[in-house]
Amino acid sequence: MSKVAAIIGGGVIGGGWVARFLLNGWDVQVFDPDPEAERKIGEVLANARRSLPGLTDVALPAEGQLSFHATIAEAVAGAAWIQESVPERLEIKHTTFAEVQAACAQDAVIGSSTSGFKPSELQQGAARPGQIMVAHPFNPVYLLPLIELVPGEAGDAALVEQAKAVLASLGMHPLHLKKEIDAHVADRFLEAVWREALWLIKDGIATTEEIDDAIRYGFGIRWAQMGLFETYRVAGGEAGMKHFIAQFGPCLSWPWTKLMDVPELTDELVDRIADQSDAQSGMHSIRELERIRDNNLVTMMRGLKAQNWGAGALINAQEQAMKAGTVMAARADDLPADAPVLTARRTVPLDWTDYNGHMTESRYLHAFADATDRFMEMIGCDAEYIQSGGSYFTAETHIRHLDEVHAGAVIEITTQVILGEGKKMHLFHEMREGERLLASGEHFLLHVSLETRKPSPPSAEIEAALVRIAKGHAGLPRPEGLGRAIGGAR
Amino acid sequence: MSKVAAIIGGGVIGGGWVARFLLNGWDVQVFDPDPEAERKIGEVLANARRSLPGLTDVALPAEGQLSFHATIAEAVAGAAWIQESVPERLEIKHTTFAEVQAACAQDAVIGSSTSGFKPSELQQGAARPGQIMVAHPFNPVYLLPLIELVPGEAGDAALVEQAKAVLASLGMHPLHLKKEIDAHVADRFLEAVWREALWLIKDGIATTEEIDDAIRYGFGIRWAQMGLFETYRVAGGEAGMKHFIAQFGPCLSWPWTKLMDVPELTDELVDRIADQSDAQSGMHSIRELERIRDNNLVTMMRGLKAQNWGAGALINAQEQAMKAGTVMAARADDLPADAPVLTARRTVPLDWTDYNGHMTESRYLHAFADATDRFMEMIGCDAEYIQSGGSYFTAETHIRHLDEVHAGAVIEITTQVILGEGKKMHLFHEMREGERLLASGEHFLLHVSLETRKPSPPSAEIEAALVRIAKGHAGLPRPEGLGRAIGGAR
Repeated sequence: MSKVAAIIGGGVIGGGWVARFLLNGWDVQVFDPDPEAERKIGEVLANARRSLPGLTDVALPAEGQLSFHATIAEAVAGAAWIQESVPERLEIKHTTFAEVQAACAQDAVIGSSTSGFKPSELQQGAARPGQIMVAHPFNPVYLLPLIELVPGEAGDAALVEQAKAVLASLGMHPLHLKKEIDAHVADRFLEAVWREALWLIKDGIATTEEIDDAIRYGFGIRWAQMGLFETYRVAGGEAGMKHFIAQFGPCLSWPWTKLMDVPELTDELVDRIADQSDAQSGMHSIRELERIRDNNLVTMMRGLKAQNWGAGALINAQEQAMKAGTVMAARADDLPADAPVLTARRTVPLDWTDYNGHMTESRYLHAFADATDRFMEMIGCDAEYIQSGGSYFTAETHIRHLDEVHAGAVIEITTQVILGEGKKMHLFHEMREGERLLASGEHFLLHVSLETRKPSPPSAEIEAALVRIAKGHAGLPRPEGLGRAIGGAR
Repeated sequence: MSKVAAIIGGGVIGGGWVARFLLNGWDVQVFDPDPEAERKIGEVLANARRSLPGLTDVALPAEGQLSFHATIAEAVAGAAWIQESVPERLEIKHTTFAEVQAACAQDAVIGSSTSGFKPSELQQGAARPGQIMVAHPFNPVYLLPLIELVPGEAGDAALVEQAKAVLASLGMHPLHLKKEIDAHVADRFLEAVWREALWLIKDGIATTEEIDDAIRYGFGIRWAQMGLFETYRVAGGEAGMKHFIAQFGPCLSWPWTKLMDVPELTDELVDRIADQSDAQSGMHSIRELERIRDNNLVTMMRGLKAQNWGAGALINAQEQAMKAGTVMAARADDLPADAPVLTARRTVPLDWTDYNGHMTESRYLHAFADATDRFMEMIGCDAEYIQSGGSYFTAETHIRHLDEVHAGAVIEITTQVILGEGKKMHLFHEMREGERLLASGEHFLLHVSLETRKPSPPSAEIEAALVRIAKGHAGLPRPEGLGRAIGGAR
């Protein structure tokens, strides 16, 4: 399968798709008749480049090639994935699919970003209906992992599997809906909340800001990690989900169900919402709000990544897949022992920046500690070994901060073993952006028993792997700054 | 005002209130006729103690006293806040309020945790209706900041202001609703989503797990930080909110509005939900899920805290209020110069733990770096000064990890100035849990111009403050480990 995607229709959603594919190493061919398309997509790409690459702890592959094309036929040539994000009018979608299918490969996925149409509607009159499926993303497409994948009854089963594999490789989660329904799943919830919100504003109960606070200070944070049912399962306690629902059910016939009709969207109501929104958020431009939103999303998603839960667990899965078969998954025995080893290649995430505008000092140690973890893994001190009761604890650390680095930079860490024998491991890391040396991290570790929390010998396998590298590194030049003490020169 | 709260009715919600007050230094007097109340509240308290204190970067005050009482009259004696969390039946609420008001102070707030009743209903027949108001929290009450505060038309304005001040001091956000309405605001949204979810499960469109994924991989993460309207404002782009709504409005009459009636909660539907939930989450006990949830919430809320946004901005505001007037807000000139200065007193947060089960090494530096920031602030290098273009950058760091520490421990950092003259600042931090020395952090910093990114002299005021402490500290004993190099002893 080629790593070429065709994006039909730019804008915020199409641009988000461009960014997802491009930053994951795909070439992207765009068709959009809007003369502003290149500028608009460029703005989305700029946002994506500052936020997406730092989500993972390994660097994404090199960016693919982006090209703009005058016709749909040109754009879809050689593409394995074609994503349609044209306006939400069925006749425009049908015309687009006809042009796409006249020129594209038969084994390419044709995804539609539609939020409202069912696949059976999209497929009407198509040359190959089974090739067209709903692949509905969520803004910002470059960060949020959810894709509602709805192939409908006519969907080609093999193509659906192919689509799921591609989406997962892009760090996305294909939510494969087996039955089609208007507006799929997520937007039905958004509509339900939207209707209720319109009533609350119309009746003067709450402002847009009060409604947002009611969401983000309460159930919004719960839902970000567990959704609806798992949250209620916890709330229900040991009595179980069945008990909880039986108790909760009667509330459904309480008086507020009377408001389930749709409020009329009068000019007055539109003005009220717009005015309240200005009062709430008007101090920030949309560009500022986008950056604030992306900073928040990256921060929370990286937090969930550390907990290996929800959207963060998806990032870890993508990371494992990216590392497989590369030097970042190799064991020490498979690497030459006469050169410092590469223990990190990653992008500085958005949330590692401090008030001085650069990567903050504790994140240097965070990156060095991750590099130490990777070195431990290389010599066999991996998660399974740690589970069995042995690990290394750091006893002493010395860092020289030699230069600044900023969010978005790709940094590499190489590691030299200074001493490796028995319980002792003395490592010297160097962190670089390209050729530029940013910092050195010198660390003395002891192997411990996790039961006694006291020093203990490592397994014979680990010691052998460590000694092999230590011997190989013994012939390397002594790194600058090794053994240095603060104030030692004075 | 006394710092005594009376909690009438335990359980998950009442227990959450107990934890909020107790961990913020209030004495708490509980009335709950359930013989299991003490055990149940103890379980909630255990969860709260492991998660809440680490939310802030300053330690919470010492815990208050918890006591259980045989009568409502005893429980409310001397209380400034009385919180009712009895079952959702109006006659029980009325009886409870009558007993409370017969014994409590007239200037105490009486809050009700009701999710369904309006204040006018609660106040019916009360001796002093204005004293009773809805104060509706969200589970887990010890972590989520939202309180819907609804006093109704009879509400006493002065008591409402008092209630808002108390809630803010507990790190909560009082969402003051001026008009009463069934189910307040947030639960109306929850009901709307719940109804839609029941339909989706009943019609076999999606399982509980698929619905949770549709929420937590997509709009749930958006809502955790911006809610509904600010999210749409960003999505609408530069065209503005008004344009966005006018475009979005027509969707409201699309076919899925036909499903706005309430599905019947048959035994079959209840079983289906319970079975799907077991398949989704049954591998975790409720206790495990509670801990996972709290780990996730703490991680995301601390992330938002670093961004000073949403629920995180609330934590920062609480922190500022807690620091005001204490040594953690003092300037260097107000402190004696002949002893190491206290630069941190904080609780190790849940998300600082690693796979070895203790505070991970980079968080030692995180805590030391925060202590350095606090020391900088003490000598006048505060946010305002940094804004004006000067700051300190760390050039070199040496850490000795001497002992382990775990989430929930209160740690203190004291700081000794080794050298302070011109651009140079050499600090030696010691981190302790009680008397136990955990680590030392030695740091060499240079004052820089944030414009040129090169070393530059600090302001005269900062240099004077630094030199004063450096002179005072010159007579202190040389700290153990100062100037040490890794491997130096070998």
